Amino acid sequence: MASHIGIIFRVSSFGESHGAAVGCCIDGCPAGIVLDVDALQAALNRRRPGQSAVTSPRAEPDTVRVLSGVEDGVTLGTPIALMVENTNVRPQDYAQSNAAYRPGHADFTYQAKFGRRAQSGGGRASARETVARVAAGAVAEQMLKQICPEPIEVLAWVQRLAHLECPADTLPLNRAEVDAHPLRVPVPAAAARMHEYLEKLMASGDTAGGLIRCVVRGAPAGWGEPVFDKLEADLAKAMLSLPASRSFEIGAGLASTYMTGSTHNDPFDADPVTGQIITTTNNSGGIQGGISNGMDIVFSVGFKPVSTIQKEQQSVDAQGNPVTLQITQGRHDPCVLPRAVPMIEAMTWLVLADHALRARLNRKDTLASPQATPTAKDKA
Amino acid sequence: MASHIGIIFRVSSFGESHGAAVGCCIDGCPAGIVLDVDALQAALNRRRPGQSAVTSPRAEPDTVRVLSGVEDGVTLGTPIALMVENTNVRPQDYAQSNAAYRPGHADFTYQAKFGRRAQSGGGRASARETVARVAAGAVAEQMLKQICPEPIEVLAWVQRLAHLECPADTLPLNRAEVDAHPLRVPVPAAAARMHEYLEKLMASGDTAGGLIRCVVRGAPAGWGEPVFDKLEADLAKAMLSLPASRSFEIGAGLASTYMTGSTHNDPFDADPVTGQIITTTNNSGGIQGGISNGMDIVFSVGFKPVSTIQKEQQSVDAQGNPVTLQITQGRHDPCVLPRAVPMIEAMTWLVLADHALRARLNRKDTLASPQATPTAKDKA
Amino acid sequence: MASHIGIIFRVSSFGESHGAAVGCCIDGCPAGIVLDVDALQAALNRRRPGQSAVTSPRAEPDTVRVLSGVEDGVTLGTPIALMVENTNVRPQDYAQSNAAYRPGHADFTYQAKFGRRAQSGGGRASARETVARVAAGAVAEQMLKQICPEPIEVLAWVQRLAHLECPADTLPLNRAEVDAHPLRVPVPAAAARMHEYLEKLMASGDTAGGLIRCVVRGAPAGWGEPVFDKLEADLAKAMLSLPASRSFEIGAGLASTYMTGSTHNDPFDADPVTGQIITTTNNSGGIQGGISNGMDIVFSVGFKPVSTIQKEQQSVDAQGNPVTLQITQGRHDPCVLPRAVPMIEAMTWLVLADHALRARLNRKDTLASPQATPTAKDKA
Amino acid sequence: MASHIGIIFRVSSFGESHGAAVGCCIDGCPAGIVLDVDALQAALNRRRPGQSAVTSPRAEPDTVRVLSGVEDGVTLGTPIALMVENTNVRPQDYAQSNAAYRPGHADFTYQAKFGRRAQSGGGRASARETVARVAAGAVAEQMLKQICPEPIEVLAWVQRLAHLECPADTLPLNRAEVDAHPLRVPVPAAAARMHEYLEKLMASGDTAGGLIRCVVRGAPAGWGEPVFDKLEADLAKAMLSLPASRSFEIGAGLASTYMTGSTHNDPFDADPVTGQIITTTNNSGGIQGGISNGMDIVFSVGFKPVSTIQKEQQSVDAQGNPVTLQITQGRHDPCVLPRAVPMIEAMTWLVLADHALRARLNRKDTLASPQATPTAKDKA
Repeated sequence: MASHIGIIFRVSSFGESHGAAVGCCIDGCPAGIVLDVDALQAALNRRRPGQSAVTSPRAEPDTVRVLSGVEDGVTLGTPIALMVENTNVRPQDYAQSNAAYRPGHADFTYQAKFGRRAQSGGGRASARETVARVAAGAVAEQMLKQICPEPIEVLAWVQRLAHLECPADTLPLNRAEVDAHPLRVPVPAAAARMHEYLEKLMASGDTAGGLIRCVVRGAPAGWGEPVFDKLEADLAKAMLSLPASRSFEIGAGLASTYMTGSTHNDPFDADPVTGQIITTTNNSGGIQGGISNGMDIVFSVGFKPVSTIQKEQQSVDAQGNPVTLQITQGRHDPCVLPRAVPMIEAMTWLVLADHALRARLNRKDTLASPQATPTAKDKA
Repeated sequence: MASHIGIIFRVSSFGESHGAAVGCCIDGCPAGIVLDVDALQAALNRRRPGQSAVTSPRAEPDTVRVLSGVEDGVTLGTPIALMVENTNVRPQDYAQSNAAYRPGHADFTYQAKFGRRAQSGGGRASARETVARVAAGAVAEQMLKQICPEPIEVLAWVQRLAHLECPADTLPLNRAEVDAHPLRVPVPAAAARMHEYLEKLMASGDTAGGLIRCVVRGAPAGWGEPVFDKLEADLAKAMLSLPASRSFEIGAGLASTYMTGSTHNDPFDADPVTGQIITTTNNSGGIQGGISNGMDIVFSVGFKPVSTIQKEQQSVDAQGNPVTLQITQGRHDPCVLPRAVPMIEAMTWLVLADHALRARLNRKDTLASPQATPTAKDKA
Repeated sequence: MASHIGIIFRVSSFGESHGAAVGCCIDGCPAGIVLDVDALQAALNRRRPGQSAVTSPRAEPDTVRVLSGVEDGVTLGTPIALMVENTNVRPQDYAQSNAAYRPGHADFTYQAKFGRRAQSGGGRASARETVARVAAGAVAEQMLKQICPEPIEVLAWVQRLAHLECPADTLPLNRAEVDAHPLRVPVPAAAARMHEYLEKLMASGDTAGGLIRCVVRGAPAGWGEPVFDKLEADLAKAMLSLPASRSFEIGAGLASTYMTGSTHNDPFDADPVTGQIITTTNNSGGIQGGISNGMDIVFSVGFKPVSTIQKEQQSVDAQGNPVTLQITQGRHDPCVLPRAVPMIEAMTWLVLADHALRARLNRKDTLASPQATPTAKDKA
Repeated sequence: MASHIGIIFRVSSFGESHGAAVGCCIDGCPAGIVLDVDALQAALNRRRPGQSAVTSPRAEPDTVRVLSGVEDGVTLGTPIALMVENTNVRPQDYAQSNAAYRPGHADFTYQAKFGRRAQSGGGRASARETVARVAAGAVAEQMLKQICPEPIEVLAWVQRLAHLECPADTLPLNRAEVDAHPLRVPVPAAAARMHEYLEKLMASGDTAGGLIRCVVRGAPAGWGEPVFDKLEADLAKAMLSLPASRSFEIGAGLASTYMTGSTHNDPFDADPVTGQIITTTNNSGGIQGGISNGMDIVFSVGFKPVSTIQKEQQSVDAQGNPVTLQITQGRHDPCVLPRAVPMIEAMTWLVLADHALRARLNRKDTLASPQATPTAKDKA
């Protein structure tokens, strides 16, 4: 098990889908951050199932409780423990699936690895664990917004559902535009088509996948730690650690692999207003040599169709005997994408928080600045 | 900087392209592994430039030297330090490029991050650092082959170069098939077309990207550590940490995002011969819930076109003044793919080595077996 | 903040003395361990204040709640989150001490480091955080007892209180002998003298320190990871991370620094019964070159007198103005030693658990044994 | 094996006593540090054997070579690899000792752990590995001196050799005072007595241990990361990881365990000149609650007598047969203390370097200062 992520802004997560609680412990958040618990709750509410006819009907309030690390709404610099109780636990839903390995799920691999597995639902492999990611991501977001000199934003949206996609140049302005439709598709016409498709798919007992795109605005140049913790490498890991994710592309991604160097290279220029060095195109997706260059960071994440379908499937039981499996109980999404949007944003905040802090230690000049080391006196 | 990777099989790498040496220190390789230095050298030779008309003519012997951790050809369990001297250093080649930020390169981002950068070539951002990855990967390979009960193989090849691709079902048998053509394309007709295309591109001073596919055969079920160090997450990070990589797909990857659950889910079955539980399709790419399931692990990595082109480009100098840049010196590949094949294999070996060791600690039953703890007596 | 310890058996701890809860998240405990929650509670009860007239009267039930990682009393291999609510919180006790930095406490250093500190009691610097250590240590203990082929025991006791000490050759048989007296002194006569001394000291408003000794019986040869994670180095760190600890000695410790090589070196011999290689003396304290040698591991930890005294003390407020401080409220121990005994045992279990797991990865012969990698079939 | 130390300023070390080379790779040193290689060499020269009649006659130049991370004498922010070749390797000296486990050495424990051991000398267990520590420590020293606003110094000396000790209030001014005598005893009369004693001991074929004291001057308040990476905890680990060390005491150490709270607590006051908050005594040794308080950091480390003696000893061979062992060859120190002085200083620099960097990330106010994040423009 490796339920921790981050070197400095370090999150340890815990919890099974049908155990007592899910949550996390955040170690490394600086002291003095004003922590708005309502914002944490709002982030969790975005992730919560039951938000529309096309998401899982499992209804839990998912109320977050702050166990430590915060006093009078301000972080102490000590670990911040967050907990969400599991209130809507229905282990009886899973009696049938325990008899056979559900295709596309982690039943078999958990059994193979650990010699046992949670008897109810996916256990640790359920997307329920992403509660902890979203809660931690909301802390990372607040921290970054308070320590970064420029406004910083992370915005993800559903770019494609199955074969139905938004225009290639889709770039929503803000979260309101994304959340306007329950599918989190910022182009109304596309959203309508996807919704219609999804309803038909649900009726047939089937499920869909698709592609989420994400943009980070306002990240400064200099984040990312070559050669192994390159910013895109840590983003890729964070995204591929999400349930059901299958692909990661940075910048022009796969499209760039069809280009030539002369069409792909982003020319440098100086911003006529700020004088800052910019690139006039952004095929790099805001990262060069593993380090942010100050342009928008852009990436995409592909998700497979949800594994839990209502159709008959072939499988085996633990002894290898063939079993025909038809799942008719349990509460599941026909498409993970809308709820994956806040998960992707959360993981992005976590990666950025860790790298923002690590990047403060790269250069003698900033480290030697007197502001960087308060004296005992001014601290009093 | 984060030049170390792995939790148990841990590699720390060092070296700039035009400094004294590149190399690494491997901490966590078990004692008793027979280490064939010739095999290390052979791995480095596969990575070495100058192997054909369509790779960089920088000619270095890249002779590896084992500084520690090995005695009489067997590992001691202590850190294994490997070093390759940089012999063909030509800093004068880079006078022009130092005046301007080279588009597509890390000149600007290293400068922004560190306040300075190596004055010759890419420094740490040069693909020269992958010497250390390949050497370490060759150690990981030997270790895994000696501790795994079943034969294990990692095999990568060029599946697509720009728009020219091998048939979708291409699956080479072995390394000989891949290395038969200098482009490391296992389908002769496709290789010929790509070679022809690449020669034309070179003549025009331009460069290409493409896609590499990789298969791992013989990995047992149970490798991978959810929820953050899922096997595909660590593979994604390892691949995206390679210079010029832009995308990662596990299993059916992006194609899976167009499927429905009923077509994507891999049905379980029992192997009629061995009785082992298998899946009858492998859209999952051998990993489910972040843990290997015993099937082939399959993934793809996209590479952008090489950034160093011989065409005129627009850029700026450190003061933001416009500069027209034309690089005519330095030694560079028109396409990174053939040399990226051994790099991808090496990174795969490193990820597998770490996870193979970590997976030994997952279950009480194996940990409590007497064989797992030799007594002082039988050790003598 | 660095509230995590261990590489494989990894504990992340959280909680302030007067916040909502204290607890921890254990990542890396193998699956299949039978976890006796009553034993966890018993360990916490040993640590709990209010056990005698000479310990702090703060009375909390300290009931542990298992939030995750365990199903039907057996570990799943997923993170084990443990929580203890803070029920007896009395922030009003600390109004006076907030006005001035309490001598011997961490008020000033937390303020200097974080620019703020918890306004009630010691916050994170309070020994209340050791609840998490003791709970985690109890998990480590159960894990080790189930994976080690030989019985393994950790036993600590109060060897000296201020200047009053047990005979030099004191070596209790078991926990019952230690716990027979509330001071956890296994020699009744010495315990009586110490108790009498402590009562007088309490009457005068003062406090005492002393020395705890600890023995590990049954640890096999081979634990400890040179050169930086030597077993005694990790033990030293674990012990010095405990509140109020001031010294660590391994084996003969300071006494060994007065010896000559010829009197200090432990001669090797073969056990006439088992044939195992042993040493006929144990000045090394069971560790040589940073690795356990199979003999008893013996070490001592010194504790300073408790900082909270009832006498008048000189200090300053945040502005540096002189303040005469007399603490008459709050609930504190006159001597930390009796309650430090289970803390030391817990930290020892944590260090041993991590090293026991890491040591399974040192040698090819054990790693290559078929028992070390169960096949998918036998796992079902 | 765990041959790396530090979280941010991270050192990976390698090398056996009779292999090709020893050295290390430093990852996390900021860019822009002026690195004086002569100072590195001077540090190694202080550690080198053969400096007097009472240190080992093994004569090696120990010339350090910088393989990477430095250009024109300034650090690039990339890993700094350092290597020292082993030139004076004499494996034939160890033929006899290979037949039997040398008492006090790590022969047996390495054999038990790894199933094999280096056939010449101590291999990785030899103090030869401290070359890497001393070289890395010299880099840490230069880094800290360039980023700390106040002058910072680490000074260690031999306080006691066997039973012969310097006055309790010994506190040398500078390194010159310590190095005036080859034994690194800053009190001439004491040094003379110790030297005389050591000569007699050598004549009898025996060895001695003793105590080294170390003071850090100029460390600001705020370094140290509770609850597990307390500054004294990391110092304790660093010191106990040194060969032959047996004890660690912070501040008044064991003496504090005999005090009462009222005599031990350090009263706070304001410095009349600077206004800074200070303590009027320093029993805490400059660390409270695991965090530096701005006073001198003071600690002591005890060393056992050197294990290699010229007297007859009892041991066994690998089969457990009794062997009488008399070592007459090999080159060894009669007392490790003089050469341990630079080792202790080096480990202290390493711990401080890591904590100085980590402490920059503790507080929002310093992180949010504009100086802490250079813009792309000023970086050019």
